[in-house]
Amino acid sequence: MIQRRKTKQIMIGTVPVGGDAPISVQSMTNTDTADTEATIAQIIGLQEAGCEIIRVAVPDLESAAAIREIREAVSIPVIADIHFDYRLAVASMEQGAHAIRINPGNLGGSEKLAKVVDCAKLHQVPIRVGVNSGSIEKDLLKKYGYPDAENPRALIESAMRNVELLEEQDFFEIKISIKSADVLTTVSGYRRLSMLTNYPLHIGVTEAGGLIGGTVKSSVALGILLHEGIGDTFRISLTRDPLEEVRVGYELLRSLKIRERGPELISCPTCGRTRIDLFGLAEAVEKHIQKMQSPLKVAVMGCVVNGPGEAKEADIGVAGGRGVGIIFKKGELFKKVKEDELLPTLIAELEKMEEERKKTSH
Amino acid sequence: MIQRRKTKQIMIGTVPVGGDAPISVQSMTNTDTADTEATIAQIIGLQEAGCEIIRVAVPDLESAAAIREIREAVSIPVIADIHFDYRLAVASMEQGAHAIRINPGNLGGSEKLAKVVDCAKLHQVPIRVGVNSGSIEKDLLKKYGYPDAENPRALIESAMRNVELLEEQDFFEIKISIKSADVLTTVSGYRRLSMLTNYPLHIGVTEAGGLIGGTVKSSVALGILLHEGIGDTFRISLTRDPLEEVRVGYELLRSLKIRERGPELISCPTCGRTRIDLFGLAEAVEKHIQKMQSPLKVAVMGCVVNGPGEAKEADIGVAGGRGVGIIFKKGELFKKVKEDELLPTLIAELEKMEEERKKTSH
Repeated sequence: MIQRRKTKQIMIGTVPVGGDAPISVQSMTNTDTADTEATIAQIIGLQEAGCEIIRVAVPDLESAAAIREIREAVSIPVIADIHFDYRLAVASMEQGAHAIRINPGNLGGSEKLAKVVDCAKLHQVPIRVGVNSGSIEKDLLKKYGYPDAENPRALIESAMRNVELLEEQDFFEIKISIKSADVLTTVSGYRRLSMLTNYPLHIGVTEAGGLIGGTVKSSVALGILLHEGIGDTFRISLTRDPLEEVRVGYELLRSLKIRERGPELISCPTCGRTRIDLFGLAEAVEKHIQKMQSPLKVAVMGCVVNGPGEAKEADIGVAGGRGVGIIFKKGELFKKVKEDELLPTLIAELEKMEEERKKTSH
Repeated sequence: MIQRRKTKQIMIGTVPVGGDAPISVQSMTNTDTADTEATIAQIIGLQEAGCEIIRVAVPDLESAAAIREIREAVSIPVIADIHFDYRLAVASMEQGAHAIRINPGNLGGSEKLAKVVDCAKLHQVPIRVGVNSGSIEKDLLKKYGYPDAENPRALIESAMRNVELLEEQDFFEIKISIKSADVLTTVSGYRRLSMLTNYPLHIGVTEAGGLIGGTVKSSVALGILLHEGIGDTFRISLTRDPLEEVRVGYELLRSLKIRERGPELISCPTCGRTRIDLFGLAEAVEKHIQKMQSPLKVAVMGCVVNGPGEAKEADIGVAGGRGVGIIFKKGELFKKVKEDELLPTLIAELEKMEEERKKTSH
């Protein structure tokens, strides 16, 4: 259904990005990178939740020095995020960063950039050219104005100018991002960028906001782009625990049937016909299935009459009545139980299904 | 930027839907409709949060009888949601429902439907033809198969057949919904439907799931459709407090610059450079601005160095450093304060701005 745009493939450590590689889910730590214990613990939590590439801020040499220990302790590739100081980029690569994210134009000139590129070639490290609306060169702002949905050219020209700085040094292991806090600018910017270049694109909305506002903005912008086949990797950026970024990321991929991880919850919004505590039941089921890997559809419906029929496509589900409820499979009655046995019976069935899946996948 | 599709305009009470009317935000109560006290209290909370049209389930005659008292006590139009029993539709309209939502094909035949339509004409009540993937007629399922993204025809033909049942009785005050729990089916279904009809469309994803999963699915599907100009009114359906549905609804409209209500929070996702408790600060600010009406952009940034520049488009913002922070306006320094004075100083400024807005808007 979704026709993905063709892009060049690069390798971030062992993770391919672009081409026919799966669209990868990234996050960024918010620990002090130099505090290796806290940083490693956070990354391990994130990789268990499905994070495939992790970025760490490198604001000083202590943080760069910490990368060696961090990359040895975790199983996903580590990207060093660097601003202004080319020495931090060089140090990060020497310490084993699998990739770096820079804005080539703000590293202090072409000689310093040359040192960064030489080091990237030596260590076979790809570079993300990461441009933000807030960090566009003054001459471009003067020429095009601040980027918006109808005129995102300052963002795009800033990115392409910085890409050229790398290409002039015969460096092509590049991915590109042009981030804005505005959804419409993000959509129109990446649409145009994807016509101009075959480098893989890292998509995202920057400073998206809190859990709900940020989830909505990221889902709309990235949803539109991914549905059009644009985007090879992304980070959902939220002012929250990065675990939520990963969780929202997989919900996004699942909503478009691009990738699945774990079961999907289908639940009715409750109405005057609801005869059980559906919120409590749905939350308990949602919590349980977050630990599961099988891509099952699990339904939690408020009424016995319409519930099973409306959730026919569910592999398994529950529908609650007054005092009693039913478990159904693929729209058909499976078991009728008392209300307080609904949740344990469903969970027991889910565990059986997860076990069976493990057996058949070995 | 967004070119909205032309549709006919109908009136739900005093609220226009379709044509050039604002895209309206709906929700549905989850109280027992016959419990008028609880239902009225919930609706009043929802209308304060910005809900513009409310739907109530009418599963029995007690619920229909309750509509009179409910509509007198609230200030937004009330839609009665009816399945199977045409007498509930008639009773709801006699009790003053501003609109009804039915599936004309399942009311028990053309004579009964004629009574519903006569009653709707008498009371000048529009009808939503609401079709769900789970309630499609058997002959259509047999002909087209269960609707999916590549073949949503069963959904569309079911809706258009039911619309024709109304048109045959010279009834045209219609809006249409074709709901699916699947994002891709929702997008392709409404795209095709919008080419076939000029009736206003009520868009939404049904059984979308819990807060995060449901917000992602609804944002992706409705984001794609609204960005293409499709959709005249919607409900975000979540298995949660309906207040969250309204909140997510406005975040969605804001993300696409379609409508604004209250301030927008821009906040950076925190990283190794963050030197303050940004989550706490962002949550406190998010909570405060939910009560405000002014469409301000409010930024909460983790570092004094990049924060103000990256949030240049913010009307006002804070950026935190070690021990001290700054308040900035439009990217420029406004005040430097101690960290524990950041939040109260920002809130005082926000209140001043809200006051000024009230003055100038009178």
